[in-house]
Formats: sequence, C-alpha cells, structure tokens
Amino acid sequence: MKLRDIGEDELIGRIVALAPRDPAPGAGPGDDCAVVDAGTDRLLLLKTDALVEHVHFLPDADPQAVGWKAAARVVSDFAAMGGRPERFLITLALPADTQVAWVEALYQGIGRCLTEFGALLAGGETSSVPDGSAMVISVAATGSVDRNGIVRRSGAKAGDVLFVTGLLGGSLRGRHLAFTPRVREAEWLAAHFQPTAMMDLSDGVAKDLPRMAAASGCGYELNRDAIPVSEGCSVDEALGDGEDFELLFAIAPSQVANLENAWRAEFPEVRLTMIGRMMDEGTGMSLVGGWDHFGA
Amino acid sequence: MKLRDIGEDELIGRIVALAPRDPAPGAGPGDDCAVVDAGTDRLLLLKTDALVEHVHFLPDADPQAVGWKAAARVVSDFAAMGGRPERFLITLALPADTQVAWVEALYQGIGRCLTEFGALLAGGETSSVPDGSAMVISVAATGSVDRNGIVRRSGAKAGDVLFVTGLLGGSLRGRHLAFTPRVREAEWLAAHFQPTAMMDLSDGVAKDLPRMAAASGCGYELNRDAIPVSEGCSVDEALGDGEDFELLFAIAPSQVANLENAWRAEFPEVRLTMIGRMMDEGTGMSLVGGWDHFGA
Repeated sequence: MKLRDIGEDELIGRIVALAPRDPAPGAGPGDDCAVVDAGTDRLLLLKTDALVEHVHFLPDADPQAVGWKAAARVVSDFAAMGGRPERFLITLALPADTQVAWVEALYQGIGRCLTEFGALLAGGETSSVPDGSAMVISVAATGSVDRNGIVRRSGAKAGDVLFVTGLLGGSLRGRHLAFTPRVREAEWLAAHFQPTAMMDLSDGVAKDLPRMAAASGCGYELNRDAIPVSEGCSVDEALGDGEDFELLFAIAPSQVANLENAWRAEFPEVRLTMIGRMMDEGTGMSLVGGWDHFGA
Repeated sequence: MKLRDIGEDELIGRIVALAPRDPAPGAGPGDDCAVVDAGTDRLLLLKTDALVEHVHFLPDADPQAVGWKAAARVVSDFAAMGGRPERFLITLALPADTQVAWVEALYQGIGRCLTEFGALLAGGETSSVPDGSAMVISVAATGSVDRNGIVRRSGAKAGDVLFVTGLLGGSLRGRHLAFTPRVREAEWLAAHFQPTAMMDLSDGVAKDLPRMAAASGCGYELNRDAIPVSEGCSVDEALGDGEDFELLFAIAPSQVANLENAWRAEFPEVRLTMIGRMMDEGTGMSLVGGWDHFGA
C-alpha cells in the first residue's frame, strides 16, 4: 500500500500513534500548532511546515516571494490559534548547483516576513540533495498565545455560525506567494469575540471545514452561494484550490451582529463572510475535494 | 556562483545576516542549538536538522534505523550543550509512491529514540515530492538546559586540553544509523567538570574542531597518533568521515587527572581520549577535510 492510496489525513492518524506524546488534553497533534503549557501566562506554540519545489512553488518563481511564503505559512498557523510567531528555524535541502544568489534572495523574503511580524531567526540547517531532486524548504517555529485567548479547532458547537475572511480560490494565479497572514485579525477576534473554533485555510474549505467539524464533534452546512470567490474563480475552485491562508472560524449566533459591525469598523478593507453553520454530528452535508498531498 | 563553489559555512555566514536575530549574546546561530533565555532556571534550546535520501541514508536502509538516526542526531545536539531533548516536530517530504509500511517503520524508529531519551512528539507535517526526488526527513525540536550547566562552543582558552568520547571514523559501515547520543555523558560532564567548550562531531574532527576553535577565538594542536580510530579505519577516515556523534570538548589542564579517573569509574565502557589542546589564535596547525554538504 502506497501513500497515494491512503492520503494525508489517514497517514497522520497512523503515524502519530507510533511515538510518545504529551498526555495533556489539547496538546496536539491535530490542531494548527502544538501547544505546550509550562504554567506561565502565555502558552508555547510549536509548528513545522515545508515548501517543496514543483509542489508549492515552481522553479522560476521569485525566490524572495518563495521565502516570504515559507515563513508566512507558519505565521498563519500561529494566527489561526490567536497567537504570535517568535523564533524560526529554517532547514534548506538544495542541490549543490543552486545559485547562491537564489538562496540569498530566499532568505531576504524570509527576513522580510519575520521583520513584518516581529519574529526572529534562531537557527537553521543546510543539506545537499542529489542533482535533479526537488528543493525542500522546511520551517519550524515557536510562538505564543495568551492562555485565555487561545482558539482551537475543537470548540465549536451545533448552531455556531461559520465565517471566512477575505476571498477564496485562485491561489495558483500568484496570491499563494504574496498573501498576508491574518495575525492582527485573529488576535483581535480572539480578544473581542472568542470564536469557538478557528483555523487557517491551507488546503481549501472543502478539506479544512470537515477537519474543523470533526475536531469539534459537529456536522456542518455550507451555503455555496455565499462563498466569497476571488475574481475569475468558480465556487468549486474557491472551495478546493487551497492555499488561501484566510481564517475560517465559528462563533456563537448571539455574537454575529456585534461581530459584523465591529469588524467593519476595525478592518474595513477585509471582507468577512458568513458561509454556513455547525450542525449536530452526523447531520448536515459532506464536502469532497480540497488539496491532498498524496492524491487520495 | 553556485553552492558547491562556496561550501556550507560560507553560505550560512551569508544568509544569517539577511534575517532579524536575537541580539542577546550567545543566542545563536553558531552553536549546536539556538538558546532562548526566558528568565527561568532552564534555558530553552531549539534545533533543526534533516536527513536526505542518498545523502544521509540509502534507499535500502532499514527505515526504523533511519527514524532512529533522524531523531538521535537532534538529541545529540542537545547533549552537545549539556541539555536534554523535549518536544519534536517531524516534517516528511516523500514521493506519493512511498510504501505506507516504510513510513510507519520510520516513525517506530523515531518513537523508540524519543522514548529512550524522555522526549515527546509534538507535531509534524507531510508533503509530497515529485516522483524521483529524494525523500527529506526534517526534524525540529525544543530542549532545555540548566542555566548554570550550559556548555557552548565558544568558551575554550589557549592551553585547554581537548578530549573526544568513543571511537571515530567508519560511520558509513553502519554506525551512522545506530549510534547512541551522549546525553548522559554530556550532562555528567557539565555537572561535574564544566568543559570550557563542547560540541558533537557531526562532520568529523577535521571540520568540527576548527569550528570550535574559531568560535572560541583559539588555534589548536592535534596529536594524530592519539586519535581513537574505529576498527579498520585510517586516521584520515577517523578525522574526515563525519557522523561520529561523539563529544568533542575542551577542559582546563588542572582538571585532566580528576576527569580521567572519574570518567573511568562512571563510564567504564566508553573510551575517553586526549587528542590535543587549544592554542593562541593564529598558532597551532590547520586541518583540512571533513564533510561539506556542498562539496566546497
């Protein structure tokens, strides 16, 4: 049996059982970041992610934009829990015939993203890969979140209303290299409206909403006509393209009117759209599609 | 200009200047781990490392041993500073035609290493790579070290005596997949003898001793006849093969006799060998060779 036969989610389910884990509830795996509670006011967040040439970027992509994307994807995961990024470790696996100028431009993009979000480069590692192998840029980072402000994927209840920020779909036309992680918006949401569940959209609503619903023990109902699509995209593309890096969150129905008013005042330039609601487990609809790394 | 024209150390020197860093002295990069001082009794250590197929392991290697090695290399870096490993993040970049059983065996090896050294799996990420590309296993981890027990690469002084643990060379004949990181030995050394500098030998004495000397602002003198070689190895192989994962450390001359006696009583099964000494900067000898990822 090969990876393409079982897909990413089943693979993860199989392998995490094979290593010792933190027995604390909510420590992860299963959320946007792992959470470490050392008893202090802020919880430690840990995240790792990778960009692979031909999969996440093409060989002729602007290396500064690739560097920005590599760091910003991880920043987005901290945002998804209401947190902030802190220290980054960068691992580069590159062919020995890679241009030095390409790697320097990559790091300029990484540096620009860290500076923008107040994070620091803590270390890294470089290795060669055989000529002809895809480049891999692996990013690991620490972050932190206020103990009272953390938002997980698992807290939504039936009846909670689902929102997304921004516009969805069409990431491959360039936006996947130039998005801005929703750190400010997420921190503001966590501080003022305590979403019951939140995540960032990395694999598309079609893949990510079922994950959030499953983590919360809910079903869901989606209003396809409400999906905020990027210019030139179909609804299916908006649901399935992935790499939107917008926020998907659930909130109690009683908060909806206040949220919409306050959001317009705080973030007039960022669309906020109600796209559906959580249902009892086993009810609602099913979504298919979204990005799966192993094609299952 | 390509990576193979400048080599790993020059590349690192160029790129770390391109991103914001912790201004605290000794925070890294430049040591075995990055060090974060949050004001508590124990300092936070951060490390990332990667295994690449064809570079660090061959396609027919036992996947459990590959998993052990992936985790143990990082454990060894925490040991090198007198610290302990804590939380691990594993990023896998694999072709979609990889066997699921291979990945499960890999994780069993990772799990065995984490269990052995009291560490936990905190999270991970999986991505496909194009068919035919080398597999990349990237490991990032947190660890910690007692504020008063930390040993850096940079504290050695001219006259300090250089020791290595174990036997060197011949890693490719199998030991590189089955070594035991010197966590116990390093913690004992840090607690009882305060080495002035320490690191783990990942690229070979020929590459790593000059790094430790440079970090300490010293020259060095090596007694080639004293190098403890693995069975069947030449001295050049012992100095240059890399992947020994033994400890290299410097200690004040006044401590040498006590150290040798106490070591024999504590670790009768592990060889400890005096191989040279630190000198004033600009004096002593030069070493060439050792493992460079980009072949410079």
